Amino acid sequence: MKSAGGSDDAKQRAGEAAAQTVESGMTVGLGTGSTAAYAIRALGEAVDDGLDIVGVPTSFGARELAIECGIPLAGLDEVDGIDVAIDGADQIVLDTGNCIKGGGAAHSREKLVAGAADELHIVVDPTKTAETLDHTVAVEMLPDAHPVVSEKIESLGGEVTLRRAANKDGPVVTDNGNLVCDADFGAIDDPESLATDLSRLPGVVDHGLFVGYVTAVSVGSEDGVSTTTY
Amino acid sequence: MKSAGGSDDAKQRAGEAAAQTVESGMTVGLGTGSTAAYAIRALGEAVDDGLDIVGVPTSFGARELAIECGIPLAGLDEVDGIDVAIDGADQIVLDTGNCIKGGGAAHSREKLVAGAADELHIVVDPTKTAETLDHTVAVEMLPDAHPVVSEKIESLGGEVTLRRAANKDGPVVTDNGNLVCDADFGAIDDPESLATDLSRLPGVVDHGLFVGYVTAVSVGSEDGVSTTTY
Repeated sequence: MKSAGGSDDAKQRAGEAAAQTVESGMTVGLGTGSTAAYAIRALGEAVDDGLDIVGVPTSFGARELAIECGIPLAGLDEVDGIDVAIDGADQIVLDTGNCIKGGGAAHSREKLVAGAADELHIVVDPTKTAETLDHTVAVEMLPDAHPVVSEKIESLGGEVTLRRAANKDGPVVTDNGNLVCDADFGAIDDPESLATDLSRLPGVVDHGLFVGYVTAVSVGSEDGVSTTTY
Repeated sequence: MKSAGGSDDAKQRAGEAAAQTVESGMTVGLGTGSTAAYAIRALGEAVDDGLDIVGVPTSFGARELAIECGIPLAGLDEVDGIDVAIDGADQIVLDTGNCIKGGGAAHSREKLVAGAADELHIVVDPTKTAETLDHTVAVEMLPDAHPVVSEKIESLGGEVTLRRAANKDGPVVTDNGNLVCDADFGAIDDPESLATDLSRLPGVVDHGLFVGYVTAVSVGSEDGVSTTTY
C-alpha cells in the first residue's frame, strides 16, 4: 500500500494506538490507506494472540490486508452495528475533529462504515493536521455525471479535476463503479454547509468531507502518540 | 412500458402538451415512465416532421424508446446544458411543484438530468396530484448499504422496504448497479428538510424527493390539459 507523506514510524504509532483500544467482542470498521493499514496489522497480531473481533472493511484494499492478517470479516448487512471504525485522513483539524478523506477514493464506503459506527477513531501522522481544512475534497459521482457535477461544484466555488487512473487508461473507477473528482475550495470556512451543499448535488454519491463523525484522533509522532477525543 | 394508474388518454394529453413546447435547436432531457413515454413518442413524430433536437435519456428505458422513435441522442458529457427535461412523477403538489419520483428506480439519473436542465416540465395524469406529499420515497443506495441506510431512514421517521425484483431473484438493481428501498414517511410536512436529511445519509446515492426542481407541470385529463408554471 502506498505510503503518502509523513513518516512510517509516526503512522505506525498512531495506528497501533487505535488498535490497542479495541476489546474482545467488538465489531471494528477497518479503514483504508497507509496509516489505517498499521492499525489492521496490529489488530491481526492481537487476533493471533486471542483477541475476538469481527472486522468490516471499508475497501477492497482494507479487505485484502485484513484477510492476509487473519482478521475474521463480515459484511455490513451481517453485523448489528459497528463499535468502532479506525481510519486515516488526508487532513484533520484537531479543534473540531472535522476531516477530509478520499485520497484512496474509498470515502463513500468509509463514510458509510463511519456512519454505522458508534465511534470513529482517526489515525494520522502530524503532516495531516491543519488549523483550517484546505485539502482538495474528493467527490464520488455516477459515471456520466462528471460534467454536470463539475459545473455545480464550480458554482459552489470549487476548482474541479477529474481523477485520472495511473495503471489504466482513462479515469479512476471506484470500488463502487463510479468516478471521482477532486475539488479545490481553498480554505473551507464552513465545512458543515459545504458538506450539505455537496451531498445535495444530483449525481453525487458521496464526498470526502467528514463533519461530525470523528470521536477520537490519534496523532503519531517520532516519539509518541497524542490522542484527542470529542 | 408499464402504465401504472391513471388513464392512458390523460397521460397522452399531458405528454404531448409538454412535447409541443419543444423548439428546434433544443437539447431535451427524456424522462422515464408511462407518461413521459408519450412525450418521447410525440417528440419522435415531430423529429420525423423536421424538428431538430438532441435528446438526453434519463434511463435505459427512455433511451430504448427514443432510439425506436428516431430521436438523435447524446450523453450528458456531450451536451452544453439541457434546455428542458420532460419527465413524469409518482406524486406532485401543484401549489409548490414539489414531487416524488422513483417508481421506475431511475430517480438518481432523472434528478441529475433535471439538475442540468434550465427547465423541468413534469407530465402527469390527475391521479398523481395531491395536497400533501405522502407517497413512499424511493432511495437509491450503494449495494451493501441497505441495512445501515434503512436504520438511518427509520430514525428520520420512515418505514423502509427494500425493493424486490419481479423478473429476477433478489432485489431490484438500478441502471447504476445499486439497490433501492421505498420509505414511507406518511404525510411529508417539510419536504425540503427531509430531502436534505436523506441526501446527507452516507450510502445514499439519491432519493426521489424533488424540491425546487420543477418549473412547469402539465396535468392531462379526459378532456384537456392544465399547465401550471413556477
